[in-house]
Amino acid sequence: MGECRRGKGQQKTEGHLAQKSCELVADGGRRVCTRRIAGMKMLIKKTNREKEKLDTRSKSISRPWVDEDLRDGTDHHLEEEEVDEEWQGLDENVAHVPFVAERYSEAEMIKRSRSFYELLNKRRSVRFLSDEPVPREVIDNVIRTAGTSPSGAHTEPWTFVVVQDPDLKHKIREIVEEEEEINYKKRMGDRWVNDLKRLRTNWIKEYLDTAPYLILIFKQVYGRLPNGKKKTHYYNEISVSIACGMLLAALQNAGLYTVTTTPLNCGPQLRALLQRPANEKLLLLLPVGYPKKDATVPALTRKPLEDIMVVM
Amino acid sequence: MGECRRGKGQQKTEGHLAQKSCELVADGGRRVCTRRIAGMKMLIKKTNREKEKLDTRSKSISRPWVDEDLRDGTDHHLEEEEVDEEWQGLDENVAHVPFVAERYSEAEMIKRSRSFYELLNKRRSVRFLSDEPVPREVIDNVIRTAGTSPSGAHTEPWTFVVVQDPDLKHKIREIVEEEEEINYKKRMGDRWVNDLKRLRTNWIKEYLDTAPYLILIFKQVYGRLPNGKKKTHYYNEISVSIACGMLLAALQNAGLYTVTTTPLNCGPQLRALLQRPANEKLLLLLPVGYPKKDATVPALTRKPLEDIMVVM
Repeated sequence: MGECRRGKGQQKTEGHLAQKSCELVADGGRRVCTRRIAGMKMLIKKTNREKEKLDTRSKSISRPWVDEDLRDGTDHHLEEEEVDEEWQGLDENVAHVPFVAERYSEAEMIKRSRSFYELLNKRRSVRFLSDEPVPREVIDNVIRTAGTSPSGAHTEPWTFVVVQDPDLKHKIREIVEEEEEINYKKRMGDRWVNDLKRLRTNWIKEYLDTAPYLILIFKQVYGRLPNGKKKTHYYNEISVSIACGMLLAALQNAGLYTVTTTPLNCGPQLRALLQRPANEKLLLLLPVGYPKKDATVPALTRKPLEDIMVVM
Repeated sequence: MGECRRGKGQQKTEGHLAQKSCELVADGGRRVCTRRIAGMKMLIKKTNREKEKLDTRSKSISRPWVDEDLRDGTDHHLEEEEVDEEWQGLDENVAHVPFVAERYSEAEMIKRSRSFYELLNKRRSVRFLSDEPVPREVIDNVIRTAGTSPSGAHTEPWTFVVVQDPDLKHKIREIVEEEEEINYKKRMGDRWVNDLKRLRTNWIKEYLDTAPYLILIFKQVYGRLPNGKKKTHYYNEISVSIACGMLLAALQNAGLYTVTTTPLNCGPQLRALLQRPANEKLLLLLPVGYPKKDATVPALTRKPLEDIMVVM
């Protein structure tokens, strides 16, 4: 992967070396031969296939869905030519070790998967958080948990800023509410004056003061190479979002509640307030604490399994 | 949120109604007044503040970090003017209910958070997956779990395609390997011929045949309004990535292994192969199963807590 050929310092990478390793150790070398042969066959086979492919590509009509996708600005991946699709680098300098996995009986797997679903299905986004203190050790553990997430080329491109200082929390609230008002007024134009209730609904972020902790999650959009040049962190937003999914699971498991927020246009000001470097962009802000006694949530339903899963 | 004013059909939304609800039921109405007053004060206060803000904005020099960010193409959020930063719509038609949270003792919270960290810290990306069958019920449960994730305006913009058919898995492998070869050859130019080992390392995706299940996760980048027009799903990529974080946690909890992959440029072909509609874009491909007996992983280290967490 390009990123790694440009040098990754001490960054370790996963699958490439796992692959390499099987040539060196696994099966007492048997797989070496298998793969060498497979590799050569693949090479010959693919050299022809690739010619056809390049021909095909010259006739865009023959792959309309490609054109369609290329027109579609939402597919960021097409711009990321240099990223390895397995989030691996080509760093050759990492040792590899046999992997022994935990095994459960099938009955145990079914039981564990069901109870984990039941636990996470109780999660709700809660806007009404009390100021009751939360053990700091729990916050440390949920962020440790988020840090176990996979990331593109194992760049681990995340910074979790935990704000507990009341003044700093209030400054954050002022920035968020101020930006929000402008967003809403800009958006709603003349209607906004007649729509105070709705505006107020979206303005007031009391939890930014009351929650014992605000966790601001920054994505590191690039790093630095030894020569000082920028090194793009491919898929940094996806990587950090996946880590946030693990963070939300860890919070729910610990009995803590939050609401997932992406402060609109506040990133630069909050980054400045928290003195984060220019390569870090705010992705999410999570107020964390216990629900207030009188907290409410909308009577939401979630899509049933058959609406989100397709089996083929 | 604009999305919702444009009509969200049966879509329910979270925080806005939680907020609304507190005006209707919480505290027997006490908070109604509190918030009304707060809201009015806020309004007057902010009307002035907002004037200042707009003045300030006319002098870009006074907020250099804004300019910097606006120059920074990586901050997609700045383009998403209409999204509510709490992922809520303005749908007024959802009932609201008191929320009673599970409470653990502090000792229990610390214990739960530590053991969940220890569980997820055992997760590794595993490329060597056996063809040993996996109970389908476990797959259903881990995808149910992913479906509990929060999403922008509760759009739940995800589709999980579970492929178990061997022929279909092999077709997927051919598409992925073919695209990969082109990516690598294009990328590596003349060097590629002298670099077979490295190419082979990245070409061969044996697990796409051997893993009992391939889970292809699609993000729904837009929906349809009653009038048939496109309805953008804001933050769909972040939402689906968060859901994938929960999916990875659920797999680890169930004793299943995977490697997180983002098949480069294969999205359109795989979408066509799996007959997904044009509003769905491939985000991730997860081969799921048990590690092979001789599976190996690189001797990776993860950043320590102090490198990923900042407390203020």
